[in-house]
Amino acid sequence: MILTVTLNTALDLTYAVPALVPHTSHKIHAVAERPGGKGVNVARVLSALGHETVVTGFAGGATGAVLRDLLGALPHGPVDALVAVSGNTRRTVAVVDGSTGDTTQLNEPGPHIGADEWAAFLQTFGELLPRAEAVALCGSLPPGIHVGAYAELIRLARAAGVPVLLDTGGEPLRRGIAARPDLVKPNAAELAQLTGAREPLRATHDARRRGARSVVASLGADGLIAVTPEGVWRAAPPSAVRGNPTGAGDSAVAGLLSALAEGLGWPERLARAVALSTATVMAPAAGEFDRAAYEDLLARVTVEQQTPAA
Amino acid sequence: MILTVTLNTALDLTYAVPALVPHTSHKIHAVAERPGGKGVNVARVLSALGHETVVTGFAGGATGAVLRDLLGALPHGPVDALVAVSGNTRRTVAVVDGSTGDTTQLNEPGPHIGADEWAAFLQTFGELLPRAEAVALCGSLPPGIHVGAYAELIRLARAAGVPVLLDTGGEPLRRGIAARPDLVKPNAAELAQLTGAREPLRATHDARRRGARSVVASLGADGLIAVTPEGVWRAAPPSAVRGNPTGAGDSAVAGLLSALAEGLGWPERLARAVALSTATVMAPAAGEFDRAAYEDLLARVTVEQQTPAA
Repeated sequence: MILTVTLNTALDLTYAVPALVPHTSHKIHAVAERPGGKGVNVARVLSALGHETVVTGFAGGATGAVLRDLLGALPHGPVDALVAVSGNTRRTVAVVDGSTGDTTQLNEPGPHIGADEWAAFLQTFGELLPRAEAVALCGSLPPGIHVGAYAELIRLARAAGVPVLLDTGGEPLRRGIAARPDLVKPNAAELAQLTGAREPLRATHDARRRGARSVVASLGADGLIAVTPEGVWRAAPPSAVRGNPTGAGDSAVAGLLSALAEGLGWPERLARAVALSTATVMAPAAGEFDRAAYEDLLARVTVEQQTPAA
Repeated sequence: MILTVTLNTALDLTYAVPALVPHTSHKIHAVAERPGGKGVNVARVLSALGHETVVTGFAGGATGAVLRDLLGALPHGPVDALVAVSGNTRRTVAVVDGSTGDTTQLNEPGPHIGADEWAAFLQTFGELLPRAEAVALCGSLPPGIHVGAYAELIRLARAAGVPVLLDTGGEPLRRGIAARPDLVKPNAAELAQLTGAREPLRATHDARRRGARSVVASLGADGLIAVTPEGVWRAAPPSAVRGNPTGAGDSAVAGLLSALAEGLGWPERLARAVALSTATVMAPAAGEFDRAAYEDLLARVTVEQQTPAA
């Protein structure tokens, strides 16, 4: 199975409005409620692709109960191995303008995690690791979790011989990379913040030198750059698409893990990641992927090997 | 006791942000969660003033359970006589800009109420009415409730000899007035929509002629106009105040009901309504009132009798 970790899970609310106008009142016509947080999104996509997937992290309070109910109701859904906490799982609100699809995001901070709750999580993580083909550590850290938490989890995964992917930003990414994960998947902003370099290929090489075995940088509509011991690749969709990019990065992570778990090489991993993230942008519902578009795109993504890394 | 009816209760979320910028992402630093809906707000203020108060209406789902928990946790809180429904109680989100206090409101539509649920409510309402000194019918109608619902409740209250106040807008207000409530409390926008007249005094007289025994129109910072069988009054705060007007109208309703229940006349009712709504604008938390400000304002509100109604 594939294990995804979401320390800051979320109940994701999507509100459709004709247009968001600050300092006025809006009647919401359509409300969607989904289990969220990056690792939960990754697990949803992996499950939809047919992989046995387990979700761990934290959930608590009334919002956490709703999140777990929604997770349990997903067809072929991931297994819920979330650890109960006393605080309330955060909500996120995405306000989507009907005419343009432009999205305004409001993210609650998440509950404070106590030392005993972190200890309970480490126990669950340790029990799940031996059964995992791969593990993904995804998203922000909730209050109360030490900034080196991902580095700690990466060391545990490496000690257990389980390939580990890290998808986060800021100081947790900086600390995590130093613990030598197999793969990090920063976006352009996270990469620039980490390395100070603006040129994506240079920044990706730089990120790798900080300790990651491989780096796959997501560049939005421009696709992916992968810098790995096996070579350097660029992968891109056949043409630019319009739509809602929410969850596209999570779908890319699911694509990378899915192909990794099936023993496929970098070109196949990158093609799957680009096809899934593009099919996510194209889907009407935020964070879902359009399966027909995915299958069509898979053969049409361009993956080009570059000059080997210096 | 005083009975307040909130057919479309809400779990009110308040998000503090430095500034709301459409089509960007916001980290929320402070989240407040309160039991809401106009009649619930009125009941909170009545309870804080020391009145025995009962809340009825509908609550359901995970959000309804949180609303009831929060209602039960209020000190000297109103009694919960809400009727359980299968749908989810709606959320409202108020996004408050830190620098200016300007508020952007996002209101979910509320759950669909079934015919059996409306019948269960009518039974509860009928059981509570004989014990009520006054009843307030407040806010919007959720989906599934017929547009003449308030008119139906007004006829029941009148048949039971219980004074009834209506605070709503649009077609439910138009239908409600025709059922001859003792008092309606439209704001300037509701009044203009009802009567087509823009001049507040003229519109207030017009509204009264449609069937209400008395009309108290709330004119924001300009205070109140009351057109009643006993005379016409204008009431205003001693000076303009800055702050968040959320809940000010509900506090005015609480002031009117509180003084009515104590057998006081119009000048006292109006003074209490203006003092409470002004003290609500002045309170740091949306929908709360500043008690010291209320007590100070009570003697300083100006209430002037006008030329009797034509």
